[in-house]
Amino acid sequence: MTPQALIFDVFGTLVDWRSSIARAVAKALPDVDPFAFADAWRQEYQPAMQRIRDGARGYIPLDDLHRENLEIVAKRFDVTPSDPPSLARAWERLDPWPDTVSGLIRLKQHAIVAPCSNGSIALMTHLARHAGLPWDCILGADLAQDYKPQPAVYAACCTALRLPPEAVMMVAAHNSDLEAARECGLQTAYIPRPLEYGPKSDAETKPTQAWEHVANDMNALATQLGW
Amino acid sequence: MTPQALIFDVFGTLVDWRSSIARAVAKALPDVDPFAFADAWRQEYQPAMQRIRDGARGYIPLDDLHRENLEIVAKRFDVTPSDPPSLARAWERLDPWPDTVSGLIRLKQHAIVAPCSNGSIALMTHLARHAGLPWDCILGADLAQDYKPQPAVYAACCTALRLPPEAVMMVAAHNSDLEAARECGLQTAYIPRPLEYGPKSDAETKPTQAWEHVANDMNALATQLGW
Repeated sequence: MTPQALIFDVFGTLVDWRSSIARAVAKALPDVDPFAFADAWRQEYQPAMQRIRDGARGYIPLDDLHRENLEIVAKRFDVTPSDPPSLARAWERLDPWPDTVSGLIRLKQHAIVAPCSNGSIALMTHLARHAGLPWDCILGADLAQDYKPQPAVYAACCTALRLPPEAVMMVAAHNSDLEAARECGLQTAYIPRPLEYGPKSDAETKPTQAWEHVANDMNALATQLGW
Repeated sequence: MTPQALIFDVFGTLVDWRSSIARAVAKALPDVDPFAFADAWRQEYQPAMQRIRDGARGYIPLDDLHRENLEIVAKRFDVTPSDPPSLARAWERLDPWPDTVSGLIRLKQHAIVAPCSNGSIALMTHLARHAGLPWDCILGADLAQDYKPQPAVYAACCTALRLPPEAVMMVAAHNSDLEAARECGLQTAYIPRPLEYGPKSDAETKPTQAWEHVANDMNALATQLGW
């Protein structure tokens, strides 16, 4: 079945958060290792969301979690940003991978394209304006008031689009995201991003299941779809 | 205060629903007066939403109300559409007023632009693809699970954008929409659309309050904003 909508993981799959955050950190905090700081900031991401997934805390947009996590990491690195809200908003100014924009433009000719990210509507809106991501609409965590990989997030995207899950394809660089989407009945496409965690990392680059598509970039995915 | 986001009424303010629906009706139901049918269909719009605003019925997306209202009106006109779901989706294929797309492109250079419509995310997404509306994100009734002019809808848009109401401007051809937005603290801009209900109608074209802006079209609004 040809998908009528493609929904995308964003951080890592479409944008290079690590280089972009390190660039902002280098400017705001010249005395720290910017990549170490970026990695530490990102490491707080899953635990902060997990408390919300577990119900230990009500839903709070990712913008606020990024801000809280910045305080935690700044304390650990023993630095004080002069303007923490501005530095936290560096997550709105992440650069796309080289194939992202051309690939999305091509895919959009044939299907609805939208983020299914843990970023808020506001965060995804600012990021799209910065990176030139040509979304048809913004979906994701805000709609479900919960965080991926909770099934409610994928389900809320399909409900908003008024499409059955099998007409929607989740595109991500992370197997866990696709596993959760497949459990909800969505189609899946895996795009490895070996540089997400930097050139020296052992980022996952192998599919853990037989996903409907495995492609090296967004344009290759469009080609596989016959688009 | 310069607005950081402009949110727009869509039906009537940005698109000419009457001519577009009449065109679809003429094709699907050649034996009826297409403008009379379009007007009758639209007349069911407010009462159907009112039951939801009153709490007499849970939230149902406008797509479904359009479909229900089509059945009501078809019965009244004593006709049977061969494909009711397809005809109901004519609301996804409305044409923009001549200034709409160029005006939105211009306004988007300076602020976030998004619909604040009673149309669902799916309906607004399809309509944007048809009409070339360059939205940054899709806001509106679906977010609040209620219908304008309920305050919850305007509030939900500001919350999704993470902006205070005074940083957001509601743009509409209907005074009642602006009255409700102003009650919520938003800025307001009135764009009269004298042809919304056809050339012979006495559509409202006068501001009922001193709105922050009154402009004849989207490009005139951009000029007034200094953009």
